Amino acid sequence: MDPISEQLDTEKLLEEGQRKMDWARQHMPIMSSLRESFEDEQPFAGERIGMAMHVEAKTAILAETLAAGGAEVAITGCNPLSTHDDVSVALNATDGVTSYAKRGVDDEEYYEAMEAVIEHEPTMTVDDGGDLVFAIHEEYPELIDTIIGGCEETTTGVHRLRAMDDDDALDYPMFAVNDTPMKRLFDNIHGTGESSLASIAMTTNLSWAGKDVVVAGFGYCGKGVARKASGQNANVIVTEVDPRRALEAHMEGFDVLPMDEAAAEGDVFITTTGNRDVIVGDHFEKMSDGVLLANAGHFDVEIDLDALESKAEQTYEARDGLQAYEMADGRRLNVLAEGRLVNLATPISLGHPVEVMDQSFGVQAVCAREMVENGDAYDPGVHDVPDELDREVAEIKLEAEGIEMDGLSDTQEEYMDSWQHGT
Amino acid sequence: MDPISEQLDTEKLLEEGQRKMDWARQHMPIMSSLRESFEDEQPFAGERIGMAMHVEAKTAILAETLAAGGAEVAITGCNPLSTHDDVSVALNATDGVTSYAKRGVDDEEYYEAMEAVIEHEPTMTVDDGGDLVFAIHEEYPELIDTIIGGCEETTTGVHRLRAMDDDDALDYPMFAVNDTPMKRLFDNIHGTGESSLASIAMTTNLSWAGKDVVVAGFGYCGKGVARKASGQNANVIVTEVDPRRALEAHMEGFDVLPMDEAAAEGDVFITTTGNRDVIVGDHFEKMSDGVLLANAGHFDVEIDLDALESKAEQTYEARDGLQAYEMADGRRLNVLAEGRLVNLATPISLGHPVEVMDQSFGVQAVCAREMVENGDAYDPGVHDVPDELDREVAEIKLEAEGIEMDGLSDTQEEYMDSWQHGT
Amino acid sequence: MDPISEQLDTEKLLEEGQRKMDWARQHMPIMSSLRESFEDEQPFAGERIGMAMHVEAKTAILAETLAAGGAEVAITGCNPLSTHDDVSVALNATDGVTSYAKRGVDDEEYYEAMEAVIEHEPTMTVDDGGDLVFAIHEEYPELIDTIIGGCEETTTGVHRLRAMDDDDALDYPMFAVNDTPMKRLFDNIHGTGESSLASIAMTTNLSWAGKDVVVAGFGYCGKGVARKASGQNANVIVTEVDPRRALEAHMEGFDVLPMDEAAAEGDVFITTTGNRDVIVGDHFEKMSDGVLLANAGHFDVEIDLDALESKAEQTYEARDGLQAYEMADGRRLNVLAEGRLVNLATPISLGHPVEVMDQSFGVQAVCAREMVENGDAYDPGVHDVPDELDREVAEIKLEAEGIEMDGLSDTQEEYMDSWQHGT
Amino acid sequence: MDPISEQLDTEKLLEEGQRKMDWARQHMPIMSSLRESFEDEQPFAGERIGMAMHVEAKTAILAETLAAGGAEVAITGCNPLSTHDDVSVALNATDGVTSYAKRGVDDEEYYEAMEAVIEHEPTMTVDDGGDLVFAIHEEYPELIDTIIGGCEETTTGVHRLRAMDDDDALDYPMFAVNDTPMKRLFDNIHGTGESSLASIAMTTNLSWAGKDVVVAGFGYCGKGVARKASGQNANVIVTEVDPRRALEAHMEGFDVLPMDEAAAEGDVFITTTGNRDVIVGDHFEKMSDGVLLANAGHFDVEIDLDALESKAEQTYEARDGLQAYEMADGRRLNVLAEGRLVNLATPISLGHPVEVMDQSFGVQAVCAREMVENGDAYDPGVHDVPDELDREVAEIKLEAEGIEMDGLSDTQEEYMDSWQHGT
Repeated sequence: MDPISEQLDTEKLLEEGQRKMDWARQHMPIMSSLRESFEDEQPFAGERIGMAMHVEAKTAILAETLAAGGAEVAITGCNPLSTHDDVSVALNATDGVTSYAKRGVDDEEYYEAMEAVIEHEPTMTVDDGGDLVFAIHEEYPELIDTIIGGCEETTTGVHRLRAMDDDDALDYPMFAVNDTPMKRLFDNIHGTGESSLASIAMTTNLSWAGKDVVVAGFGYCGKGVARKASGQNANVIVTEVDPRRALEAHMEGFDVLPMDEAAAEGDVFITTTGNRDVIVGDHFEKMSDGVLLANAGHFDVEIDLDALESKAEQTYEARDGLQAYEMADGRRLNVLAEGRLVNLATPISLGHPVEVMDQSFGVQAVCAREMVENGDAYDPGVHDVPDELDREVAEIKLEAEGIEMDGLSDTQEEYMDSWQHGT
Repeated sequence: MDPISEQLDTEKLLEEGQRKMDWARQHMPIMSSLRESFEDEQPFAGERIGMAMHVEAKTAILAETLAAGGAEVAITGCNPLSTHDDVSVALNATDGVTSYAKRGVDDEEYYEAMEAVIEHEPTMTVDDGGDLVFAIHEEYPELIDTIIGGCEETTTGVHRLRAMDDDDALDYPMFAVNDTPMKRLFDNIHGTGESSLASIAMTTNLSWAGKDVVVAGFGYCGKGVARKASGQNANVIVTEVDPRRALEAHMEGFDVLPMDEAAAEGDVFITTTGNRDVIVGDHFEKMSDGVLLANAGHFDVEIDLDALESKAEQTYEARDGLQAYEMADGRRLNVLAEGRLVNLATPISLGHPVEVMDQSFGVQAVCAREMVENGDAYDPGVHDVPDELDREVAEIKLEAEGIEMDGLSDTQEEYMDSWQHGT
Repeated sequence: MDPISEQLDTEKLLEEGQRKMDWARQHMPIMSSLRESFEDEQPFAGERIGMAMHVEAKTAILAETLAAGGAEVAITGCNPLSTHDDVSVALNATDGVTSYAKRGVDDEEYYEAMEAVIEHEPTMTVDDGGDLVFAIHEEYPELIDTIIGGCEETTTGVHRLRAMDDDDALDYPMFAVNDTPMKRLFDNIHGTGESSLASIAMTTNLSWAGKDVVVAGFGYCGKGVARKASGQNANVIVTEVDPRRALEAHMEGFDVLPMDEAAAEGDVFITTTGNRDVIVGDHFEKMSDGVLLANAGHFDVEIDLDALESKAEQTYEARDGLQAYEMADGRRLNVLAEGRLVNLATPISLGHPVEVMDQSFGVQAVCAREMVENGDAYDPGVHDVPDELDREVAEIKLEAEGIEMDGLSDTQEEYMDSWQHGT
Repeated sequence: MDPISEQLDTEKLLEEGQRKMDWARQHMPIMSSLRESFEDEQPFAGERIGMAMHVEAKTAILAETLAAGGAEVAITGCNPLSTHDDVSVALNATDGVTSYAKRGVDDEEYYEAMEAVIEHEPTMTVDDGGDLVFAIHEEYPELIDTIIGGCEETTTGVHRLRAMDDDDALDYPMFAVNDTPMKRLFDNIHGTGESSLASIAMTTNLSWAGKDVVVAGFGYCGKGVARKASGQNANVIVTEVDPRRALEAHMEGFDVLPMDEAAAEGDVFITTTGNRDVIVGDHFEKMSDGVLLANAGHFDVEIDLDALESKAEQTYEARDGLQAYEMADGRRLNVLAEGRLVNLATPISLGHPVEVMDQSFGVQAVCAREMVENGDAYDPGVHDVPDELDREVAEIKLEAEGIEMDGLSDTQEEYMDSWQHGT
């Protein structure tokens, strides 16, 4: 298969893709710092890295950073609809990178591109959803011997890999990048919180001030959405199934209600649970005319759209990215982004902020380096990211921001040790 | 001149415009409440209302509301670039409304449309910038006798009218809608605050968390921007020229610095002063690579773009709605919306939130009613909106939101009176 | 009458009083700055200033500051219970100050002390409640000729003076210090807000987190209490009688309810209205067991304690500064500080924070200076504090805090002028 | 040894102690709920519980709750200075409780009281600091056979027990109550946060608005202090030694500085690290006149008072609970509570809020019940509190507050399981 640049008329795409990458690069100080050290140290010299990720500007900077460290990178998309062709073209024009990603491909083309990556015979894989590692195990097991290991970005992918691992079917080591503090603390609280609210505001032209905003779930994403909405003068109502989280929300000053009651109170509903059927049939009956329904959790199963559809007299796209369901009694319930991730799936959504992905991809990059340097230390299977790698990324970020910290004196170390390990 | 619908192929525009108006109507409860009472009471029966405003969905709801009250409404734009043709077509299809507004008209067409409105021989005018009242005084003085009065929405327009008034050249009464508490408290703090931040976030794909955000000016707009940015976990720095506002900002917990020092600290700069030359030549020298510069004040004179241009090695559109100025030393300073109002002038900006305009237009509508009912009570000249009209709109909003308040008992009234007027 | 120091055994009192004054002085930078300039310029040389104020540490610093400017100061209390004897003794030992204030005096002694001050034949008066100006007009009208003018600190006093003024019975000019922005913005929002909440917390040993706090009134005091309570993770409910304030509260994200409904929701009730009968009979019926009731408004008439008493089966002091009213059904309603100002009247309350009084007294001091320097410019009657004096105090505070501001360039001045006065 | 009531004249103490306990009981809904179920079920029938804790009102409610469950409780203090004699007397008058605690005892008396408790031959121990469990192991090992187990409240005690456990010297099972989410999330964030700030405000009569507050450490306590101070309009600066926590603070919008720089910026310094030497010699050199220094961490070693003393020209108690250290250059550094826990050790401090201790003691109570019911399941040594017990307390609290939550449907359970355990 040909790389992307030979499939499309590329001049204008190239320019636009490079413009997007320039912007991302300018706001990814961790990547910049790592790129500099990788250029010096060439940790990936001789390695071939296969990647299957959303091919947009932020990811492109991860790819070029790995390439700057000496890797030969081959990349394709991890979803037929998420590729930006311009970025793909620009990436393909980057030294050391070949891109096969193309938007709107059919199933066959999607797998052809995946195979094209695999034909580079990667010695390391970087996945978002696990498609690459899965395809290799299924179709190209002969490559596994020469693969040092890989990294997986998402909850879904990690879940899939753990299932493989449980069945003794995962034959090389994989880092679960998804689960690190650097990802959960920043990506979920700040990234999901801010980008979900901004996407909703800019899709609807509505204000948060004085709105009753129902946040389903008070995990990291829910906390982020609830606090940021409160910071825009919304009145936040939290629903939960876990008593301690419910109590946390209550003690933070939020109302806590079962969804059955919250349904009648809310102006905006944002699900962040990761579970299914959070807003269902009966709830729709109780909602006011004009409510907004959005999902900032994971899959599009949190709001039961089938039930909503079956209750509606008619449905129409009331704004770009927003479907109105009109009930027999005239109430209109407005669903954003078809219940898919609202910070990704409306026409104007841009996904997580650049800086937040800088942190996630920082962990990816140091994990890839760790695999090359100490791959032998990791058995086949899923591995937590070593804590010192996660800390290293935090340190790089602080340095990039010019933030200094205190160090521990010997006396202080000793004092802490005496506490932790007993006198 | 023909109304808009005869100028354009209208079917698709009509549908799209009605879709936009439906959405706005759904979130403008004050307009809904007034429309209902206007339908009953027909306060504008026999009146012809001429309007020159930004013809987009929210304004359209004002126009249809006045028409519902019995007025014959003729409307055109107040800016050659701000008309939404689809809304204009939909408005023209509304009972009692004729629209002449069209996007991208040249000067001649702009004034032709204005004249077309005037040829309806309005008995009342509703202006945004004062063009209509000015044209009537200049060109159609013979109409003034039959004009009861009018309303003006903006700072600029009120300013212009006061100048006319000072010269005894304003020959019918005008309400200065711009200056009411209902407008300043909500439009400025919540409307400008939220929509500016959301426009910046969605244009740049950047996060507020941990950013140093310099807010120039701590008036109503500045307070809104500062508090909302802080509510998104930014670290806010305020610049001011007034000592009490500077102290207010300091006592609220914000850093206060002269712009000369703030320039070196900020990641994002947002001007809200209403003055000119707030960010100038020397400041640009001190800024870091990658800063964002945006204006949420009034005119595009707060950031001195000429100075910036002259200092830059090159300039290019780094993202849609964002111009990068690259300095000789490689630093890139990024200006949003060409220094014009960032919540209006980027490609994805939508202006003030619907609910906020509902409040402003609520004041417009009751002011128009007041003119019809009690126009005699107002001499030619600029008039403050009577406080009870402003309060009435607040009451309508509270009722629409289902919010109940306490009333004052007789004893309480008496107690307060004894305080206010002496024992 | 003898000054305080000859009435009491003073050694220990002196030391304790000076310790309190030292502390206050250390945290009153505006007073320090003014003291320094007053020492240089001696604006009050030859003047005799009579003061009737709460004689505690913060006020003492105002008195010593005026004395440092050359005044001969004679002071007494403005309330028989608010004097700190130790501070009074220490003040008496201050150069240029004679204090007659003593705690727990009876009516006769109270007026004797007032007369002792008047016998100094003041050329200027500084009042908190108007007793001094009133006594002079009633009993010593012959002094009025030589009195330049005076200042009044409080709402009550200003109210009383305006009543005199309305009757043409106020024969020298008085500044209404109470009404300045420097007082309302900081004293009410920050001073009342913080000190009320801290007094309640430290009297009850209870937490704000997750509490439903009902704030009656959303003026400056109410805003302060509501925002600061929210900042401690309370869930705030506002009651109001004014629709725009109700809407302001709603748009800021607070619940707005009539007291009748709020009564059943609240854990803590704080009145800030300045009106009477805010919490009355029926409300008590609906409250939960264990609620707290406190007043942060003005007089002790906001909570109807007579009604509460008549409904209670028994009442007892459940904690120092907190009276429990036990209902027939076993519910206990807990009233702090007998419904008087909770930040002043519990055993541990300390009144407004030092820094806040520094600002109020800064205005007092520059007003006194203005009277001496430009007294002729003011007719007999009540005068608003000239805006430039209020600004001057803000400037002094900023300088004391090391905070720099921007200035206006000539071009900027011109631009603003063109706006304000017409082109 | 005689119980407390026979050592002191008790009538007035009894009344005062019961008044304090009444207040605490009124605001400890978890204890109320458990007391009710314990009265019914008598889980401690036949058990003898020995307690060594701070004997004040909140602890007293724990003791009476255990007694209500059928236990014979014997209690003494865990610190010679922390006992409230009135509460001790009131406790001794409670059915099923014998108290030996007395304030201000010498070492000998302290241990006599401890022995008096042990002579009750407890079958369970409840400790705050581990003195009781330690004394039993050292002096009364013969009792261990009949002891089912115990609970330990504090960090220090748990640390000490783990050291014993590491040496195989802990011969019965102990629950580490200190480490549960219910304690860390609420006690540290809300309890320490609020009570530390209120104690500082009420000791100093100073305001938080506009203050630069340096918070050393951004663990749970530091987060609480930082957020609550920010909620009172302070400008917060965080110091940290851990890069991820430093980054968390930065991303939350706080300034992050090394203490060396923060020293020159701060108006108030609050240590929350749990480590020693956080503020040391050089830092004092850089601080401004009038700063406040307080510790909200654990021991009084966070601020190096020896170094401060040696640098000071003189030192004196500037206010009750506040020691001023005056430097040669005239600067005064003000230390609260001698560097001990500021929310416990100033004259007006009351420790953690009642509701917060309700949660901690709720965990204690259900742990005690668990020991009785399932003690066999726990080997000698330190045990984490089983998660379901911690959750149970959260559920009781929610029910007491009338807060309802959602439950998981079967489909939801299944969906989550499929995620956690693989498809």
